[in-house]
Amino acid sequence: MKTSHLASAIDRRTLVAGLAILPALSGAFLARSVRAQAAQGEPLPSWKDGRAKQAILDFVRATTDRASPKFVPVEDRIATFDQDGTLWVEHPIYTQVVYCLDRVPAAVAAQPELKEREPFKTVLSGNREEIAKLSLQDLEAILTATLSGMSVDDFETEVGKWLATAQHPRWNRPYTDLTYQPMLEVLNYLRDNEYKTYIVTGGGQDFVRVYAQRVYGIPPEQVVGTMGGTKFGYDKDGKPFLTKEPKLLLNDDHAGKPEGIHLMIGLRPYAAFGNSTGDQQMLEYTGAGDGARLMMLVLHDDAQREYTYGPAQGLPDTKVGTFPQPLFDEAEKNGWTVISMKKDWMRIFAFD
Amino acid sequence: MKTSHLASAIDRRTLVAGLAILPALSGAFLARSVRAQAAQGEPLPSWKDGRAKQAILDFVRATTDRASPKFVPVEDRIATFDQDGTLWVEHPIYTQVVYCLDRVPAAVAAQPELKEREPFKTVLSGNREEIAKLSLQDLEAILTATLSGMSVDDFETEVGKWLATAQHPRWNRPYTDLTYQPMLEVLNYLRDNEYKTYIVTGGGQDFVRVYAQRVYGIPPEQVVGTMGGTKFGYDKDGKPFLTKEPKLLLNDDHAGKPEGIHLMIGLRPYAAFGNSTGDQQMLEYTGAGDGARLMMLVLHDDAQREYTYGPAQGLPDTKVGTFPQPLFDEAEKNGWTVISMKKDWMRIFAFD
Repeated sequence: MKTSHLASAIDRRTLVAGLAILPALSGAFLARSVRAQAAQGEPLPSWKDGRAKQAILDFVRATTDRASPKFVPVEDRIATFDQDGTLWVEHPIYTQVVYCLDRVPAAVAAQPELKEREPFKTVLSGNREEIAKLSLQDLEAILTATLSGMSVDDFETEVGKWLATAQHPRWNRPYTDLTYQPMLEVLNYLRDNEYKTYIVTGGGQDFVRVYAQRVYGIPPEQVVGTMGGTKFGYDKDGKPFLTKEPKLLLNDDHAGKPEGIHLMIGLRPYAAFGNSTGDQQMLEYTGAGDGARLMMLVLHDDAQREYTYGPAQGLPDTKVGTFPQPLFDEAEKNGWTVISMKKDWMRIFAFD
Repeated sequence: MKTSHLASAIDRRTLVAGLAILPALSGAFLARSVRAQAAQGEPLPSWKDGRAKQAILDFVRATTDRASPKFVPVEDRIATFDQDGTLWVEHPIYTQVVYCLDRVPAAVAAQPELKEREPFKTVLSGNREEIAKLSLQDLEAILTATLSGMSVDDFETEVGKWLATAQHPRWNRPYTDLTYQPMLEVLNYLRDNEYKTYIVTGGGQDFVRVYAQRVYGIPPEQVVGTMGGTKFGYDKDGKPFLTKEPKLLLNDDHAGKPEGIHLMIGLRPYAAFGNSTGDQQMLEYTGAGDGARLMMLVLHDDAQREYTYGPAQGLPDTKVGTFPQPLFDEAEKNGWTVISMKKDWMRIFAFD
């Protein structure tokens, strides 16, 4: 699975050179051509032929063909997807954390006593170096102050507004543009085959729900995330509403992922997609079921088109999206299929 | 809405007398005739014409007709149903509590130190009078001992076995036969109109999930109930599994119902059905949305065919399924529709 950066650079140069002699082939044209292919019944048009694509096709065939010994009834067809690093870009920092940092001024305006208190003081200073040094505990304080205390309706409005204007620093595009086109195709392909697709994320459940329908075609009730409590109450006119509480109900990461799946779905998935140690238990839980099960890990090995981290870079760990060698070893051992972004995906983003 | 017991008795006698002159009309025949009516496109065949039936028909028309100003897109069509006393019989005692009492010997076998401890000693004595006197705290201890400590798979197996043999003391039938046929028709009618139907119950989420698909056509992911934590771990062969923990995540009753709805669904229902004070906040939350909303309360006013309790009996409260006068008054004030079991339902059970 490991590839040298040189090989990666050559591939990219070859591709660029190839495109250079065909000036008429714009990104939009390619996108149309991909859509046309999909409409003609060719699933996964952004995937290159190979072990990963074949694993998906084989799994769907085995579980949806009535003649197959591994046929799965429609009501049991559950597929779960990690979000950060699996469905969209998680580097250099989780999108939700960017949102929380951006919301600190509003949180301080609502609670002026936070202004002189750390870590809020550091965030307000705008000193990027100091902000980058904040501890996990500091981050938790920021998340609590910016993700609770308001009504669920106000929160949804604020996140929606932020998503409409915030941009990723590398691509200068909205974060919701930075979804992986090949994974959107997997979502659609599974849904076309009557799978229910779920996001199972360590990110905040309410945060992801704001855009999951529009961006992934996944309705709010199929978003499983880190869950906070809410409190039912009445406004001054007696109208009932829910307030987001600083109470953690379930940390939907690592062992919390199968626990969250049981809580929210109550069924073991037949397919699970992840990219980091936070997804390991979800993949193990999925693989422990009988019949055909599909477990896949996205490998970030494409520095040119996205990022390189995890075993592709030889790093034991990274700040986000850890994919250390032991997880990579377990993938081999358990028959999980690794998806190489560089080798398996013809393009990364819809705008490519 | 109040009716005298005498009137109720006369109706029943008239019906029985009417049936007596038609010996060929067996229960099975009636059931077939009802199904045939439904197949011919006549919804709600077990409902008598009246305000309640009309409210359901009007709501579905207003929210599914594209020309209606109150049209609701398919992805927002959510309907929530309380279970105990709304979808099936809750008297003389919640079915899940019967299960827990029946499981005490097994719990004591697994933890022999409970044998001499209260309330287990009383339950094991079999003294019905003493068991009926157990406090809520005692009951909680019994629920904890019988609903946690095992794997989620073992729990599902045990509940399934119990349901196959346990019988309601009045009808001598499995508890799962004691669902209200008119409400099953509402579930089907809403689903036929692309509503997602959810159970939102104070009962245990995992308990109800065992039979919800078979009995109500509601899949596990659409059962919202009182939620306990689970713990991910590995058995001696390294196979992962989930253990039911004694940790309460959410008490899905009263204010917990809208909180549970937000947690599990993330959308405000357009229709909500209940029968007790435990459902009040769910109905208020539903009614606070704009457009057409349907809030209904089942009134237990039919002692002959089921039970009479709540305002029908003039009681301020009962042990289970409280429906006191203040809730009844609120229903009138808020425009909620009361369903009289006696006057609105032609039959109560599928076997009637």
